[in-house]
Amino acid sequence: MIIVMKPHAPEEAVKRVAGLVQEKGLETHLSQGKEVTIIGVVGDKTKLSNENLTMLPWVDKLVPITESYKLSNRKFHPEPSRVKIKDHEIGPDTLTIMAGPCAVENEEQLMTIAREVKKSGAQFVRGGAYKPRTSPYSFQGLEEEGLRYMAEAGKEYDLCTICEVISEEAIEAAAKYVDMIQIGARNMQNFQLLREAGRSGMPVLLKRGLAATIDEWLNAAEYIIAEGNPQVVLCERGIRTYETSTRNTLDLSAVPVIRQKSHLPVIVDPSHATGVCAYVPPLAKAAVACGADGLMIEVHNDPEHALSDGPQSLTFPAFHQLMGELEGYINLSGRTL
Amino acid sequence: MIIVMKPHAPEEAVKRVAGLVQEKGLETHLSQGKEVTIIGVVGDKTKLSNENLTMLPWVDKLVPITESYKLSNRKFHPEPSRVKIKDHEIGPDTLTIMAGPCAVENEEQLMTIAREVKKSGAQFVRGGAYKPRTSPYSFQGLEEEGLRYMAEAGKEYDLCTICEVISEEAIEAAAKYVDMIQIGARNMQNFQLLREAGRSGMPVLLKRGLAATIDEWLNAAEYIIAEGNPQVVLCERGIRTYETSTRNTLDLSAVPVIRQKSHLPVIVDPSHATGVCAYVPPLAKAAVACGADGLMIEVHNDPEHALSDGPQSLTFPAFHQLMGELEGYINLSGRTL
Amino acid sequence: MIIVMKPHAPEEAVKRVAGLVQEKGLETHLSQGKEVTIIGVVGDKTKLSNENLTMLPWVDKLVPITESYKLSNRKFHPEPSRVKIKDHEIGPDTLTIMAGPCAVENEEQLMTIAREVKKSGAQFVRGGAYKPRTSPYSFQGLEEEGLRYMAEAGKEYDLCTICEVISEEAIEAAAKYVDMIQIGARNMQNFQLLREAGRSGMPVLLKRGLAATIDEWLNAAEYIIAEGNPQVVLCERGIRTYETSTRNTLDLSAVPVIRQKSHLPVIVDPSHATGVCAYVPPLAKAAVACGADGLMIEVHNDPEHALSDGPQSLTFPAFHQLMGELEGYINLSGRTL
Amino acid sequence: MIIVMKPHAPEEAVKRVAGLVQEKGLETHLSQGKEVTIIGVVGDKTKLSNENLTMLPWVDKLVPITESYKLSNRKFHPEPSRVKIKDHEIGPDTLTIMAGPCAVENEEQLMTIAREVKKSGAQFVRGGAYKPRTSPYSFQGLEEEGLRYMAEAGKEYDLCTICEVISEEAIEAAAKYVDMIQIGARNMQNFQLLREAGRSGMPVLLKRGLAATIDEWLNAAEYIIAEGNPQVVLCERGIRTYETSTRNTLDLSAVPVIRQKSHLPVIVDPSHATGVCAYVPPLAKAAVACGADGLMIEVHNDPEHALSDGPQSLTFPAFHQLMGELEGYINLSGRTL
Repeated sequence: MIIVMKPHAPEEAVKRVAGLVQEKGLETHLSQGKEVTIIGVVGDKTKLSNENLTMLPWVDKLVPITESYKLSNRKFHPEPSRVKIKDHEIGPDTLTIMAGPCAVENEEQLMTIAREVKKSGAQFVRGGAYKPRTSPYSFQGLEEEGLRYMAEAGKEYDLCTICEVISEEAIEAAAKYVDMIQIGARNMQNFQLLREAGRSGMPVLLKRGLAATIDEWLNAAEYIIAEGNPQVVLCERGIRTYETSTRNTLDLSAVPVIRQKSHLPVIVDPSHATGVCAYVPPLAKAAVACGADGLMIEVHNDPEHALSDGPQSLTFPAFHQLMGELEGYINLSGRTL
Repeated sequence: MIIVMKPHAPEEAVKRVAGLVQEKGLETHLSQGKEVTIIGVVGDKTKLSNENLTMLPWVDKLVPITESYKLSNRKFHPEPSRVKIKDHEIGPDTLTIMAGPCAVENEEQLMTIAREVKKSGAQFVRGGAYKPRTSPYSFQGLEEEGLRYMAEAGKEYDLCTICEVISEEAIEAAAKYVDMIQIGARNMQNFQLLREAGRSGMPVLLKRGLAATIDEWLNAAEYIIAEGNPQVVLCERGIRTYETSTRNTLDLSAVPVIRQKSHLPVIVDPSHATGVCAYVPPLAKAAVACGADGLMIEVHNDPEHALSDGPQSLTFPAFHQLMGELEGYINLSGRTL
Repeated sequence: MIIVMKPHAPEEAVKRVAGLVQEKGLETHLSQGKEVTIIGVVGDKTKLSNENLTMLPWVDKLVPITESYKLSNRKFHPEPSRVKIKDHEIGPDTLTIMAGPCAVENEEQLMTIAREVKKSGAQFVRGGAYKPRTSPYSFQGLEEEGLRYMAEAGKEYDLCTICEVISEEAIEAAAKYVDMIQIGARNMQNFQLLREAGRSGMPVLLKRGLAATIDEWLNAAEYIIAEGNPQVVLCERGIRTYETSTRNTLDLSAVPVIRQKSHLPVIVDPSHATGVCAYVPPLAKAAVACGADGLMIEVHNDPEHALSDGPQSLTFPAFHQLMGELEGYINLSGRTL
Repeated sequence: MIIVMKPHAPEEAVKRVAGLVQEKGLETHLSQGKEVTIIGVVGDKTKLSNENLTMLPWVDKLVPITESYKLSNRKFHPEPSRVKIKDHEIGPDTLTIMAGPCAVENEEQLMTIAREVKKSGAQFVRGGAYKPRTSPYSFQGLEEEGLRYMAEAGKEYDLCTICEVISEEAIEAAAKYVDMIQIGARNMQNFQLLREAGRSGMPVLLKRGLAATIDEWLNAAEYIIAEGNPQVVLCERGIRTYETSTRNTLDLSAVPVIRQKSHLPVIVDPSHATGVCAYVPPLAKAAVACGADGLMIEVHNDPEHALSDGPQSLTFPAFHQLMGELEGYINLSGRTL
């Protein structure tokens, strides 16, 4: 950390600040410029957590040099992580496809969709049993009944299963039925839920918050890993901007940025990001091209009558075609399905 | 709702869409332009919730005309709401001041701060017992112990008390100790928590999410009210933008916008919005000037050593001075403390 | 256009609004809901440009149905446009690579870079002679001298040449030396400059403004085309968001969105978008994968000493390697260099 | 400036970087942490402008400590500036009101409006003669004819006059007719225009760009002042965010931030920021309450038929009422009209 003093801070003010830092057992290095003096601070910064150094007289600002996340930081874990789910591994060698409906609507629907996405090559069936919805008057999910259908579909078609959780009870229920849990964008900073997901010991897909920076996202992952659960996969799903042509703005730069900052796998969800099925195939290809470890794609047997997010869902033929077109891109990336 | 067809949609396509709407028991009104036909839909739109009309051939887009929130909507409740807490009423006649530390640190600290903010004229003491923090390594709050101190401070100095809750257990604990609960920005779309806050029957302060639109915010309030709990107060606390001079961008326009769209009281938190104590007084005055029903302000006995958010906290003398300066603005607004 | 009346607007108010619209020679279609009446307006909306209908009593809002841009709109020009520059065509069959330094620094530098980018397969050399810089104390470009070097480089290595213009005089100068002019992000709504670019008759690369919506961007293109110059190519170069890991947030969704809304070619500039050379290759591949018609990439002989934007520039070996890796993606896109 | 090295950078790498800096005549101060070494750089940074230090091996990032703007920086000019226009002074003692139509439409309109705004207490009449419009098909202004009417109105009613300029010719024309020129939001980084405004020697109102940070805004002011023209007044007019209830999001925090960073006067335009006349009065009061040096407000004799931006214009009675209500706030601010 660097402490920047205000221009022409008197020597005593600089000494006072440096002295306070030293008292806590850290080293300081002064660098005196013509206008401005800066104090480099070396040592364990958590010892300073009770001090608000910016409140001291003549202090201008603090400039952090190292990141606050450690366990999710590539600096301390240079090799890319692999997350194993049943026989499948999410990581640098594979391209993971999670496909399915936004919401589980009934048994037949889910079984049909699971069969088709398996046929097209997906390794996961996804489906929401607990739906966080902007309006309280929208369909909120089948809850445990939906989870049961997920388990059934996974078994019948030999697919891994993933489901969003929105509460501790949902995590407990999900643990009985599915292979991986998902923390949605709206809960990315529901720290209680992150800790519980960590304690559950289940693999976790952590979606990026609607307005979360990449650093906040990696700190959210840190909450899960700090509970002793390193099986975290990140999912970019669009951020909120002023642009309204797409529901959110898919931030594909996040893929190479995460690759540099973290060892965790990262997948991309072009369906929720854009909200428009016509934009899903080109952005799915782009995600693979820029190095994503996988894709989450909404597929529905009858998008015209889906209970949630129909307009962004691919039909079976559209998904099948996309999977065919992705093949070339997956080959170029040196991965396998 | 209006259904906009694509340019030169054939008559049969228009008929098909209109027919489908009529089948569900709603009326349609065609308006045929030179290029574009639009279909006005009249009736209860929830009957269409199983249909994804935008997936139908030749449909271009849907344009909603009415808001999805009803109970928080001023159209159906033209009089401004008043929320009673002990002897105090939050609403159009009063200017409510909630002041106190970001985090409750210990009994003595809280009692000292409560005494001082009472002396300066605040009606509420605020203080965090459960702290949602970006990093898992930051101080997370005293939890129930902190709530006990809040109760004590409220009793000793005849202040209303408010505390953030982040889980169902926290709501249950808070119900025993404090007068009002707060849902923080990061949990604004934690729908499970909103419902539980509704069921608790306690007055709720609902902070705006970091990237929430005003419509999403009013829909979040709708979740609480829909559980039979109309005692909701909104709190603007800054939104995320590209500007970095302040921690967030305080959106004071939200005050008159909310006034027009909703009957719920709205207060402003300039401390969290800016993150800089020097900016709090001018923006506190501005909030009163544009019609806010109250202010939430961080005050600390020793900001240099606060465990959370020190740089944005006012000292006692600064808070006392602000309260003196606010008097003229409160008078101009026709309100009383 | 649709006029939405406020709830329970009296019949006379509706009649007054509809009457005013009809007086101007447009048709109206009423659609009366239980709460809300809407008025569909059919005909030439420019006839209403002197009326502020939203100011009329009981009018709630206007909802535009058709776009304000016509000449850049795909609805009226379904075939993708092709822009010819010397022997090269920018459009659906080719993948255009524009490469070169951010700023032209001297003759030798530019000739060296031009030779290398040609060798690696680029069809254009780019280079800034007029540099819009945030601070007045940064290097502002060689101006006409820089243009002369561009002409020379184009001739010597049989490359098309492109240069940013920032004023009428710059356009006049550029017309003498280069094959295509570029309007930069900061000038996307410098309407005077857009008109002059239109009148120049030169092919124009129009970069997206830092906070421009896609609709504003297409309206800016409209300014150029409306002067009788249809040779416009769009360039996505990142938009401003709250995320700071990259300089801007590259909005690759803009590529399929533009494809749907417009017939104009669209290329992508990952160098300016990210500001970090390590992120350029993955995003360049992603841009090709999602359907871009080309790429603009910064290449420098000595990025460590570049006068402008060095950190985002590729070295010759890095550019050469990228061009090799792009081959597979270009093949998959069905295009040729 | 601080150079942050990557974790565990070898000593030679640190030496190479420090050596390069020293060669250019600057001092370096090393601060070696457990993981990270940082190099404080003392001296004139412009000597390093040809070096891209971030490209050097093992360099992680550069952290600027001092601002790039000097002439607009409060650090080097602690007293607030005053800008004199005829008998009026914009600065810390006065509250300047600029009122008038968005666009000058004809002589009679402007004279009527000028008379009324003068009567209500405004010191300036504003009016657009050159209108930058998103669509080329919207009304673009009366140009020089409009300026002539402005001069007439200023003379007739003893008002200062201000007009937006969008080109060098417009500046030349404006210099003949009006007292102050305005650079609009879309041209805030039209550096050519900024320089010309500086050279004109006229007082300049510089609006904040739609997505400009406060630092970029002050750098834009620097362009004007660097030409020898210190008569610059800033105008906050809303920034682009995801919120759509208002046209832009008025950033009132910018007022105290500017006050701290710069000595230049700053006024607020609530009309363009919100786009809705009902929101103008509350936000005008808020602007005065948080310390703005003035207001720019749109007033129109007949907003229903205004050629530009009618919905945000106040009628004469509404403006008159606002001016009456502002009195108390102006008194509290210790200023006079």
